[in-house]
Amino acid sequence: MASPKGKVFVLTGPSGVGKGTIVERLFKKVNNIYLSVSATTREKREGEKEGINYFFKSKEEFKKMVDDNEFLEWAEFAGDFYGTPKFYVNNYLSCGKDVLLEIELQGAKQIKQKCPDAILIFLAPPTFEALEERLIKRQTESVEKVKVRLKKAKEEMKEIKLFHYLVINDKLDEAVENVISIILSERCRIKQETQN
Amino acid sequence: MASPKGKVFVLTGPSGVGKGTIVERLFKKVNNIYLSVSATTREKREGEKEGINYFFKSKEEFKKMVDDNEFLEWAEFAGDFYGTPKFYVNNYLSCGKDVLLEIELQGAKQIKQKCPDAILIFLAPPTFEALEERLIKRQTESVEKVKVRLKKAKEEMKEIKLFHYLVINDKLDEAVENVISIILSERCRIKQETQN
Repeated sequence: MASPKGKVFVLTGPSGVGKGTIVERLFKKVNNIYLSVSATTREKREGEKEGINYFFKSKEEFKKMVDDNEFLEWAEFAGDFYGTPKFYVNNYLSCGKDVLLEIELQGAKQIKQKCPDAILIFLAPPTFEALEERLIKRQTESVEKVKVRLKKAKEEMKEIKLFHYLVINDKLDEAVENVISIILSERCRIKQETQN
Repeated sequence: MASPKGKVFVLTGPSGVGKGTIVERLFKKVNNIYLSVSATTREKREGEKEGINYFFKSKEEFKKMVDDNEFLEWAEFAGDFYGTPKFYVNNYLSCGKDVLLEIELQGAKQIKQKCPDAILIFLAPPTFEALEERLIKRQTESVEKVKVRLKKAKEEMKEIKLFHYLVINDKLDEAVENVISIILSERCRIKQETQN
């Protein structure tokens, strides 16, 4: 039988596509999977908690962690830094628990190289118009930042081929069900030399 | 985007492991997937219907279909013949519908060669003792036939590596959920040149 080491799942997608909501829902329904808490330099949003949503860091603190090789991946996105602390993920994996990383595209690329067994899921909006609407409604950022994020989103969509799965967040319930299905099915997967 | 052609799912596992029950349950919960009706030379069991459960054929009729190349796969199992009529599967696939084949190991091997994109699921009992108990309780076969099926089951388990997924039918609800998850997740899968 396979070793009891856990699996790494990566959920990536444009800002505003609904990653956070989907993650919240799936953790209520799936056992033995833990969310990796990222470090970030972006400002804390209302309701967010240190150590639960993120580890909030100054740019100086973040750079020191980079220099000390404390990240599994890290990336700059829309002027802020985001990173996945290594110890977090490795602790869970070594206990046979799965870990979900909710990260940006640059980070997902690093994970694909460093953890070739990681399962990469891309969450996409049904249309760019729907994404724009969602970002504006969220009211957490300026119009300029929304524009930056939309431009980035269009570039990201070109790199879907790097991912193993594409989930379209059109109807939320279906998107949640699909992400859960990916996790459950990958737990049943038989590792092979060559696989379609 | 990918062509709208449907996907082939193959569900294989020892007799008595519960394939029929799982198939019945999943068809109540998943849309756009159709069960391929096999032809067989085995005797009709109580409650089974022609064209619904199987196409019941004499050995002569079956052999003629083999000679006329009318099967996608066919196999002998415990003295009887089973086969998947080609037209059935191809009709659904060409309409963009998925097709589930509930077939024996020999047939699954043929499908793997003829349809390299087919997704192969092996359904296994939690233990051989559990399988024996289930076969005896079913009371559809003689003690000798049960022994033949058990011996065959042990040989089949050695070939799990041919399959993409392994689902253990310990708790029925979980097994059903896992098979459904495999179908839903494969629909989200991005086809790649090399895939882990």
